[in-house]
Amino acid sequence: MNHSFGSDNYSGVHPKIMEALTRVNEGHATSYGGDEYTAKAIEKFKEYFGNDIDVFFAYNGTGANVLGLASVTKSFNSIICSDLAHIHVDESTASEKFTGCRQITVATIDGKIYPHQIEDRIQRVNDQHHPQVKVVSISQPTEYGTVYSPEEISRISKVARNHNLYFHMDGSRISNAAVSLNKNFREFTRDAGVDILSFGGTKNGMMFGEAIIFFRQQLSEDFPYIRKQGMQLHSKMRFIAAQFDALLSDDCWKRNAMHSNGMAARLAEELRKIPQVTITQSVDANAVFVIIPAAIIPALQQEQFFYVWTEKTSEARLMCSFDTRPEYIEKFVKKLRELLGRL
Amino acid sequence: MNHSFGSDNYSGVHPKIMEALTRVNEGHATSYGGDEYTAKAIEKFKEYFGNDIDVFFAYNGTGANVLGLASVTKSFNSIICSDLAHIHVDESTASEKFTGCRQITVATIDGKIYPHQIEDRIQRVNDQHHPQVKVVSISQPTEYGTVYSPEEISRISKVARNHNLYFHMDGSRISNAAVSLNKNFREFTRDAGVDILSFGGTKNGMMFGEAIIFFRQQLSEDFPYIRKQGMQLHSKMRFIAAQFDALLSDDCWKRNAMHSNGMAARLAEELRKIPQVTITQSVDANAVFVIIPAAIIPALQQEQFFYVWTEKTSEARLMCSFDTRPEYIEKFVKKLRELLGRL
Amino acid sequence: MNHSFGSDNYSGVHPKIMEALTRVNEGHATSYGGDEYTAKAIEKFKEYFGNDIDVFFAYNGTGANVLGLASVTKSFNSIICSDLAHIHVDESTASEKFTGCRQITVATIDGKIYPHQIEDRIQRVNDQHHPQVKVVSISQPTEYGTVYSPEEISRISKVARNHNLYFHMDGSRISNAAVSLNKNFREFTRDAGVDILSFGGTKNGMMFGEAIIFFRQQLSEDFPYIRKQGMQLHSKMRFIAAQFDALLSDDCWKRNAMHSNGMAARLAEELRKIPQVTITQSVDANAVFVIIPAAIIPALQQEQFFYVWTEKTSEARLMCSFDTRPEYIEKFVKKLRELLGRL
Amino acid sequence: MNHSFGSDNYSGVHPKIMEALTRVNEGHATSYGGDEYTAKAIEKFKEYFGNDIDVFFAYNGTGANVLGLASVTKSFNSIICSDLAHIHVDESTASEKFTGCRQITVATIDGKIYPHQIEDRIQRVNDQHHPQVKVVSISQPTEYGTVYSPEEISRISKVARNHNLYFHMDGSRISNAAVSLNKNFREFTRDAGVDILSFGGTKNGMMFGEAIIFFRQQLSEDFPYIRKQGMQLHSKMRFIAAQFDALLSDDCWKRNAMHSNGMAARLAEELRKIPQVTITQSVDANAVFVIIPAAIIPALQQEQFFYVWTEKTSEARLMCSFDTRPEYIEKFVKKLRELLGRL
Repeated sequence: MNHSFGSDNYSGVHPKIMEALTRVNEGHATSYGGDEYTAKAIEKFKEYFGNDIDVFFAYNGTGANVLGLASVTKSFNSIICSDLAHIHVDESTASEKFTGCRQITVATIDGKIYPHQIEDRIQRVNDQHHPQVKVVSISQPTEYGTVYSPEEISRISKVARNHNLYFHMDGSRISNAAVSLNKNFREFTRDAGVDILSFGGTKNGMMFGEAIIFFRQQLSEDFPYIRKQGMQLHSKMRFIAAQFDALLSDDCWKRNAMHSNGMAARLAEELRKIPQVTITQSVDANAVFVIIPAAIIPALQQEQFFYVWTEKTSEARLMCSFDTRPEYIEKFVKKLRELLGRL
Repeated sequence: MNHSFGSDNYSGVHPKIMEALTRVNEGHATSYGGDEYTAKAIEKFKEYFGNDIDVFFAYNGTGANVLGLASVTKSFNSIICSDLAHIHVDESTASEKFTGCRQITVATIDGKIYPHQIEDRIQRVNDQHHPQVKVVSISQPTEYGTVYSPEEISRISKVARNHNLYFHMDGSRISNAAVSLNKNFREFTRDAGVDILSFGGTKNGMMFGEAIIFFRQQLSEDFPYIRKQGMQLHSKMRFIAAQFDALLSDDCWKRNAMHSNGMAARLAEELRKIPQVTITQSVDANAVFVIIPAAIIPALQQEQFFYVWTEKTSEARLMCSFDTRPEYIEKFVKKLRELLGRL
Repeated sequence: MNHSFGSDNYSGVHPKIMEALTRVNEGHATSYGGDEYTAKAIEKFKEYFGNDIDVFFAYNGTGANVLGLASVTKSFNSIICSDLAHIHVDESTASEKFTGCRQITVATIDGKIYPHQIEDRIQRVNDQHHPQVKVVSISQPTEYGTVYSPEEISRISKVARNHNLYFHMDGSRISNAAVSLNKNFREFTRDAGVDILSFGGTKNGMMFGEAIIFFRQQLSEDFPYIRKQGMQLHSKMRFIAAQFDALLSDDCWKRNAMHSNGMAARLAEELRKIPQVTITQSVDANAVFVIIPAAIIPALQQEQFFYVWTEKTSEARLMCSFDTRPEYIEKFVKKLRELLGRL
Repeated sequence: MNHSFGSDNYSGVHPKIMEALTRVNEGHATSYGGDEYTAKAIEKFKEYFGNDIDVFFAYNGTGANVLGLASVTKSFNSIICSDLAHIHVDESTASEKFTGCRQITVATIDGKIYPHQIEDRIQRVNDQHHPQVKVVSISQPTEYGTVYSPEEISRISKVARNHNLYFHMDGSRISNAAVSLNKNFREFTRDAGVDILSFGGTKNGMMFGEAIIFFRQQLSEDFPYIRKQGMQLHSKMRFIAAQFDALLSDDCWKRNAMHSNGMAARLAEELRKIPQVTITQSVDANAVFVIIPAAIIPALQQEQFFYVWTEKTSEARLMCSFDTRPEYIEKFVKKLRELLGRL
């Protein structure tokens, strides 16, 4: 399949990461994370986030999110998130099934949630009849490709602290956020008050693997058991570890994310020149949301596939990846203009 | 780390499979299994098992087992297995948590369970107060490295049918069983009455990935939802598919398993010559269980690591792998003799 | 404690029902529902709803609702209800924990949900990533004391049928609805397309006990197991059965509900004469929702307790019961006028 | 139905308790336990067990057991109990479903479990792959009608403490145990090291209702939420409270239990005179287990019903109740002799 704007998980594995996989494929390694590669990859994370953290690897984003949430909730709790949150719209009922908790959603227009919305949803505290809110979960970048500023995150964190809630971040595309903000990972996660982070690998050039990072170590006490029970403990762990090691080395994560963000910016720039289409969201990271006349969408998808995000408004999501090339954008925009011309 | 007899998941990825991973790392592919590689890998499975089956990929053995069991049970059911079954001793409470069902164990000496044992455990049928047995699960080869004959499996299947139970097989090392029996996969699974099979990849040279195969297609209706909810749906699915395609091509699975079984046989042969140690189980596949004087175990583990399976009796498990070489066995046996000599 | 408008579960047990409890307290009876009293009570239900139904008794409304929902869902499903539904706001996360399903709420102003709202929430059908809607649940009367007409219910039922959803009714105050509509139970439940009904007893004069009624018998196949597992199977079942028998005999249910509805009507009538308070909902059954100046609420609660339903708007819920007497209303209204006079 | 030896839940409600139910059926009471009757009943429990305890009421024994266990476990834990434990054989998979935990059973001949058996089952501590034992649960009296001495209980408690396990007692017939031991409740529960107690009411003359008692108050912190979520929170709580108040007043519990124990002793005495039948267990409480020739069982059950406990050995369970009268025993024994005579 040619390049597409379908998703950053339509792309393959970055060559540096593939190389790392080959490199560690030597001899035997203790399974389930008792190996040196895993220790080394965890060290890498500590370089970015500080030493007093706990890091665990899981297979995928759903696993990382759900197990992270499970580690700080009891089944009579609830979890506040946006109504577009991946944990809400794209992870089946994994979080309900595994944690027992309810998801409490707040409506979002830009993918973000705001402190007052959280406060509005904290109801009937200490009332046995009603689910007790325990976690706020945000996505950074959001599902709309927008990026919270460190200040926005700090403000959410303050509300969370005031109400005795934990603060979870779904960072499946966290590298894109870091590049967008031009900040270290730490500045808009740990230092901004996040407690638990799903650190994404797959969408930034890995084959598989996500990390769950606990910034308060006491929260991770049960995590090894939760992960095993949650069917997310890999046996040949070195092959997740090696990928993260490579991703976090030599700025691989940054170069990939700079590239995909840059491609999205370029794509947006081209689209803004076309009066018949309307960009709907701030292009902060690697996604462009754009309203395209419905009539031409199927033909345009033939050129390079993308998803229609909102059927009603004909809003498309164009996702750029570490392997998106300028010529793909050119071709896409050219086709778009051509199809619009025929309307 | 040097070669070990720790586990077949201490070994890395077979070169043919690593090659396949590199080969499919080209361009974009639809995620979540909508790609051509996944279709092709499923076709491969159909060559072995027949066309009217359903095949799904998951991350690991625990996932494959638990989700397979979940697809044929309701939460008030119970599952009969051996008291050494992987689902019982090595998968935390994943099956209880995810299915709600109880595991009913039968004592085993050779890793196998027998029809009369199953019948003994089918109690209080249609009694609302008591868990209702719904599945028999066996491991092939067993956790003791023994292999059920097709006839033994058929006999279990008959009991299952008679009592309206489903028949699940944990085939995390199924290739070793096929080689041991010198049979096609189909002869001792589908044709012997198995309904659902966890087909193992990781322990026979893959990096990650297991398959769940439904031999009665009506049982798989909900599986896509169960897998997603169970956090076992991979986004970049082509990278599991490509591994299975390679494993099932050019007899890669068979050559790997013949090698590891052969190494176990050779190791057993050498150990049998040593009067101070006792092989405890029939060496049918790639594992050797052997009682070794406790005093020398730590020093021997230094040479090449292995697990003590039964502390009390000082029974060790020596697991051979596709990458075990004759010289590793020689070295190990030499060291063993040396240590025994010093006793 | 004196009479209150707190809840219909603040009231005690109706004398006819207490009598029935004493009457069946003779000799031994088979436990867990195998007794003649249970059989007789089930027959009573069949007189009202037809013979081809299945009836089960449970302890309370939460149990009846959650187990009814569990009997027609799989854990990857979702359940549509109003955002005021008892299952949503007053049953903790019982339904998430026990069924695994998500609740999908629609905003309500009058306690009811409408067909177009249901259709709006049926999204991403057959998409493995997203919870699959399987049930619509309504409360009759609603939590706002309003009552659906049979036609309104039929319209919901049509939407449910069209989308292959089951239709559940929480009838914890169903007798009040029947009296309000002046209809037989059957006309606005079974005949209007409801599949599963929680038939309330406790709030209409019983000590404990609710019934779950399946209008399509194939849906109840697993119910005995689900109820036992759900910890809702009573041993001395005759004592639930006898209560239902008494409630359904000699129009006890109807007289009780006529009384409480009548008292609510009378109370509403009196309140409407007072310009400083505003009735917010149609008084169809036994509840009156009324905005009362916040300043006088504590003093008024001293007179006869009631709950503030909406803090922000100072909306109170005044719930009448089978034992509410006209003089209680008089006293309450008098006190209200007196307190308002002092403002 | 005439008197039977079926179960102590075949009997009805003790007159003193029925009286109490009528007595509290006056006026309104705050629901869900916020009433004075509930406060008073809890005070009663404190008279027996000390002030620094927490007491909660639930509907039934399954609810009391499962919710008590849920309050001290995480889903990756396991629970040790006898293979005859009510939680194991008669509560469906309620505990697996609600707690996620596995039950680890030890074989029992007399209904009891012994310290060494517990130690044998504590395996693979801190191993993420294996369920982690967290609770020991015993039944007092056991399902075989035998009664642990305070010393036996203390010994179990010591093992529990040593291994950081909680100690749960299913006391569904606890009054019978107290009478059998001629001890205060406290001496063989709290003072013997029990942490959580299911205190049974229904089988000793109540209509419904069990209590969960926490002897370490920090363990009960979440219990209100767990109970609500577990569908075991009664609205008209005064009607459970009043029963317990009556049961615990004027030695009602003791007189009932003395009576049923006495009747069992008398029955056993008579049976011991009959050479063709064999009493299999120590008759410590209100149950007699006796082997009766299979051929005459159906006819004998016609006389007064009882359960066959062990089909294979033709072992019957004869359960006495607070309402068993000497003449029932006489009649039963007479019939038994008559039937034996005809053999």
